[in-house]
Amino acid sequence: MRRVHSTEVRNAVLQKLSQRGVRLEDIAEIVYEMQAPYNPSLQMEVCLESVRAVLEKRELQHAILVGIELDMLAEQRLLSEPLQTIVASDEGLFGCDETLALGSVLGYGSIGVTTFGHLDKHKIGIIKRLDTKIGNGVHTFLDDLVASIAASASSRIAHKHRDWEEEIGPPFELIAGDTEKPTISRVFEETESSVVPLSAEENAS
Amino acid sequence: MRRVHSTEVRNAVLQKLSQRGVRLEDIAEIVYEMQAPYNPSLQMEVCLESVRAVLEKRELQHAILVGIELDMLAEQRLLSEPLQTIVASDEGLFGCDETLALGSVLGYGSIGVTTFGHLDKHKIGIIKRLDTKIGNGVHTFLDDLVASIAASASSRIAHKHRDWEEEIGPPFELIAGDTEKPTISRVFEETESSVVPLSAEENAS
Amino acid sequence: MRRVHSTEVRNAVLQKLSQRGVRLEDIAEIVYEMQAPYNPSLQMEVCLESVRAVLEKRELQHAILVGIELDMLAEQRLLSEPLQTIVASDEGLFGCDETLALGSVLGYGSIGVTTFGHLDKHKIGIIKRLDTKIGNGVHTFLDDLVASIAASASSRIAHKHRDWEEEIGPPFELIAGDTEKPTISRVFEETESSVVPLSAEENAS
Amino acid sequence: MRRVHSTEVRNAVLQKLSQRGVRLEDIAEIVYEMQAPYNPSLQMEVCLESVRAVLEKRELQHAILVGIELDMLAEQRLLSEPLQTIVASDEGLFGCDETLALGSVLGYGSIGVTTFGHLDKHKIGIIKRLDTKIGNGVHTFLDDLVASIAASASSRIAHKHRDWEEEIGPPFELIAGDTEKPTISRVFEETESSVVPLSAEENAS
Repeated sequence: MRRVHSTEVRNAVLQKLSQRGVRLEDIAEIVYEMQAPYNPSLQMEVCLESVRAVLEKRELQHAILVGIELDMLAEQRLLSEPLQTIVASDEGLFGCDETLALGSVLGYGSIGVTTFGHLDKHKIGIIKRLDTKIGNGVHTFLDDLVASIAASASSRIAHKHRDWEEEIGPPFELIAGDTEKPTISRVFEETESSVVPLSAEENAS
Repeated sequence: MRRVHSTEVRNAVLQKLSQRGVRLEDIAEIVYEMQAPYNPSLQMEVCLESVRAVLEKRELQHAILVGIELDMLAEQRLLSEPLQTIVASDEGLFGCDETLALGSVLGYGSIGVTTFGHLDKHKIGIIKRLDTKIGNGVHTFLDDLVASIAASASSRIAHKHRDWEEEIGPPFELIAGDTEKPTISRVFEETESSVVPLSAEENAS
Repeated sequence: MRRVHSTEVRNAVLQKLSQRGVRLEDIAEIVYEMQAPYNPSLQMEVCLESVRAVLEKRELQHAILVGIELDMLAEQRLLSEPLQTIVASDEGLFGCDETLALGSVLGYGSIGVTTFGHLDKHKIGIIKRLDTKIGNGVHTFLDDLVASIAASASSRIAHKHRDWEEEIGPPFELIAGDTEKPTISRVFEETESSVVPLSAEENAS
Repeated sequence: MRRVHSTEVRNAVLQKLSQRGVRLEDIAEIVYEMQAPYNPSLQMEVCLESVRAVLEKRELQHAILVGIELDMLAEQRLLSEPLQTIVASDEGLFGCDETLALGSVLGYGSIGVTTFGHLDKHKIGIIKRLDTKIGNGVHTFLDDLVASIAASASSRIAHKHRDWEEEIGPPFELIAGDTEKPTISRVFEETESSVVPLSAEENAS
């Protein structure tokens, strides 16, 4: 049996998200809303970059493919009963959508999990739009997956921000205006540019 | 080496919670706030009973003993560095408190996890009071443990409520005022004193 | 949209397992093999009863329906690519099967998780037979789900066994042959028909 | 209150492990035993490098500090009862050690979790030596933490190995002996040298 190359998996993920009406910019907006209070100089492009980075992980890519597949099969009424009704109605006590989504967020530490719980409860932005059942669209899995992507990307920024603070040293150095110290954008550039697309580092760690 | 009887463990848990200023009624209030929107006839005593029930679990009892021990050792400055400073300051990226608390909530399904995430972010009631650092009190672990107890007890009620709805049958029967159908308080009594097949106990816990 | 009654869900689970060649007795055999070393007087019927009990849980029931559905769709080549190839070939780094199965075992404490890890690696009995790819049968999700059921049922017995030991008191009482003390089968009967404070049901599930 | 720099945390982790008799080489040996069957050309130095890499993660560092602290306090009989007896005797149903250790392994995907379960059951090498209770040494938490480090490092190698296989292309190219293709050691060097010590990438992802 042929083996699926990771490039094929990644491309399928990006295509499916787009096909289901989710733009990476929509997810980045949620990340911004989550992290801006702790990080006033945060820029939207940093959020978008973080969304792209977490989407390189195999665990999350597979979860997205499985979840969207089940949503689409339910839309076409191709699941067997009683699963068809449970998924199509986004049954309150059905938890496989959250279990699948939680699996990938666990790798981003406790901030990831609590942010996921928050987003799952207070569906904001694109998550809200997906959760609102209109017409025949089924997004039972997708809204949780988007919450998972956003929570992971948020947690990743929180950790990077701390690393940046440590690199520039204690606050008084900021006041002193030491221009030789790295700026946050420089730190991000450095760690980003050294990470090759779909690198082992991104996937395994 | 002597073996600790489960009665001794349970009594220690109740005593420690009380000693640290947490009354079971405080936790029941959070449960009420979480579940009342989905269950308008919910009574406070049902919430309190649910808190007591989740506190019977070994996994949670052990987590409470470990967490409170670490809080108290940090208060007395008996931990070694750098752990002493990390715990005493409730370091933002320290996640062992949430990991320990999450361990016991995972058994209550996905509602438990999302409620935990919500409570961890929007600290309400007693959780808020514990989180507010006053004087030398350290509650780094305890606030997450209380969130875990409340989230577990909430999820347990959500599952029991569904079981009750199924027992009384579809809504029109309620309108018909079938007085032979079980009331919710009767269902709770019955499931407490005996486990029927597909009981709430089995589902929720 | 109609609401699915829990009886319908449970019946579908039992029917699907049977249809896919998994008898509850096969799972009970794995449970026996896991627990007999710690509990020499363990009887097969206790293992079977424990398998039945964990199968009453909503979280696990839903996971079984989702997993078997994906296996069967892959057999019929009805999944879209690249998911079709990934599931049909039980790709080594595909982890959604384990994530889904792990979700329900987490509720049974740490013994459940380590037993699941062990079974997932040393596939024994029916798990081995499912994992061996013969003909067109796809059991990518089912082998992990069976490991999850067996691990949960094993952990549940370990907790119940401890409760029983505590009820009969310290070992010397056994030597004294106190025939008034409860036997293990009596304890199981009692805890099934009624939940006593600190009962096995509460602890193990 | 002063803030603990991540360098201080990392140094404390390495010092504590050494102080408790765990050499990174001991852990690398377990990793080798786990991964060699899937990767015949695996070298011990790659395993050691992987152990070092997972030890850069904040989540795991914090878990190690907490776990060793509790072990040492139990050795000195400084925990309050009944926790003192539970930890000192490594009580069979005590699960906080596994919960804490599992928290950090979850970030490495499903291979990490099943390897952890396997190691927790079939304690090999240094884990076996720690688990064997000799004299007054308490290693209730440490043996699970070492299993977690080894499982994480193993899973990381499995993912990297796949990336390497994809980079060199399909098997027939290997036969063709295309010397321009990257070798596995070259792939590791490249991804390693681009990761700065304690980088954000390592910590957050």
